[in-house]
Amino acid sequence: MESWNIPQAVSLREVGPRDGLQAEPTVIDTADKIALVNRLSAAGLPRIEVTSFVSPQWLPQMADAEQVMAGIARRPGTRYSVLVPNLVGAERALVTRPDEMTLFVSASETHNQKNVHRTIRESLEGFHQIIEKVGTQVSISAVIVTAFGCPYEGVVTPAQVIALMDRLEALGIQEITLGDTVGVANPRQVFAIVQQVSHQRPAIQLGLHFHDNRGTALANLVAALQAGATRFETALGGLGGSPFSPGAGGNLATDDAVYLLQEMGVDTGVDLPALLETTQFLVEKLGHAVPSRVFASGGRMVPQGGDPHGH
Amino acid sequence: MESWNIPQAVSLREVGPRDGLQAEPTVIDTADKIALVNRLSAAGLPRIEVTSFVSPQWLPQMADAEQVMAGIARRPGTRYSVLVPNLVGAERALVTRPDEMTLFVSASETHNQKNVHRTIRESLEGFHQIIEKVGTQVSISAVIVTAFGCPYEGVVTPAQVIALMDRLEALGIQEITLGDTVGVANPRQVFAIVQQVSHQRPAIQLGLHFHDNRGTALANLVAALQAGATRFETALGGLGGSPFSPGAGGNLATDDAVYLLQEMGVDTGVDLPALLETTQFLVEKLGHAVPSRVFASGGRMVPQGGDPHGH
Repeated sequence: MESWNIPQAVSLREVGPRDGLQAEPTVIDTADKIALVNRLSAAGLPRIEVTSFVSPQWLPQMADAEQVMAGIARRPGTRYSVLVPNLVGAERALVTRPDEMTLFVSASETHNQKNVHRTIRESLEGFHQIIEKVGTQVSISAVIVTAFGCPYEGVVTPAQVIALMDRLEALGIQEITLGDTVGVANPRQVFAIVQQVSHQRPAIQLGLHFHDNRGTALANLVAALQAGATRFETALGGLGGSPFSPGAGGNLATDDAVYLLQEMGVDTGVDLPALLETTQFLVEKLGHAVPSRVFASGGRMVPQGGDPHGH
Repeated sequence: MESWNIPQAVSLREVGPRDGLQAEPTVIDTADKIALVNRLSAAGLPRIEVTSFVSPQWLPQMADAEQVMAGIARRPGTRYSVLVPNLVGAERALVTRPDEMTLFVSASETHNQKNVHRTIRESLEGFHQIIEKVGTQVSISAVIVTAFGCPYEGVVTPAQVIALMDRLEALGIQEITLGDTVGVANPRQVFAIVQQVSHQRPAIQLGLHFHDNRGTALANLVAALQAGATRFETALGGLGGSPFSPGAGGNLATDDAVYLLQEMGVDTGVDLPALLETTQFLVEKLGHAVPSRVFASGGRMVPQGGDPHGH
């Protein structure tokens, strides 16, 4: 490799209010969730996953999904998405006028059954029902979880992932995110699959969603960038990890991603100081620390006599 | 970028017993330090920085440097190095028969003066005296600290670093490590400087030493690898950070580096399970947690039904 070519701008979807908070054992006040989303949009996040329309019995943290969606101030230029697990959830969600709905399916059969108690085929049938119901009112995007490895089945091959992408594309879904649900991806693997997808399935709008169980999420983001990826999902402070995925750790911290992208000259549209203030707000509401290293270090070093970064 | 070419093997120097322990406020028993070094060599580390011959008044943690060097079992195939700050330290060190001595100088004048109370010119004069004294008995390598940014002066340019390399090379030092002492390097910057050095100064045996204040150390390692670097310094568990460098955080964890290199098919010669057992030993002796993410996650995920990594 003789050159270092990465995109000049990327689009981040903030998933902290959904993927982050769903892992929190203490239920956060609805007003605080609303304030969090509003602070995130004010900090410049172009896309925010606001909540999940799962059953409140299943996930009490998300029982106020309607109230949160009704309470947020819709900033022009920000797209608000919600997670929808099934037709009932989609019907509840539709009333709240999200810009986007996100559907989840696992790359591995066993994980899908453990996670949503359905076969992959049943999940895709459910997606079809949702798409029929929603029509063109809302954009639909899909996340393929365990796309880089499964805690039950182990190996997940690129061929498996691309085959599932084809089934999603056949349903009319073109925006697809690959999730490293248990944090086992490595940069070489990430580079290869991003390059393979962009060559073999150029119509797919590919996104990446990394977890940081083994400290590799930021290195994986850089590898994806090098392969041309421009869409990422991250969570404020590095919150998250599914309570239903054994061994799952936090998401890649939005703070850390924005910092590093900015240092490399990649535009995110996000104001890092405003973002770090939002993390401070989040930490106060949660009552515990968060994994973000940039939040812990206070962001960019401000030297006494100059700029260490050469900008 | 269309390909992913990285070296098939790298050489790690473990600096935990020196750069890690020097930051620990509680003095560790000499016998525990010896056991730590022996466990590290048994785990397959090819190079270990054992201790520092600084003044015991200055750094009480290293007051037992002679005893540690006398107590370790020298494993054939492992090279044992010591940090030497000046001629007095070199004379003390020589008696203990290290394989290598490491000399430190800052890329920025202000940091050098704050760190060792000398100008860069005075440091280099000191190196000359040490080299005269040591002759060919011991290999000498140098570390340029604050090579990617200085907490006092800010910007450090590649030209500044290469000019200092030339002064070191003129003293006969060909193995030079660039240290990101305050954790401000980014992958794009790392790639550029590694490539520049290897093109413009091919005789230099370049190494990299990353700190993880902002969670970027592993991404920086991967970028250096992509530019062809094959020599890295890491610290067990991610210990470290100089007490004399404001804002300095832990070193890149050897655990995390070995894990990720192994996942990418890059040989280190290190046995990861033995390494993680050594980190467990270290944590017990320190009495506190360490930053390594791979240590916290237990290393590779062992799935119930296969191998998630595709090996």
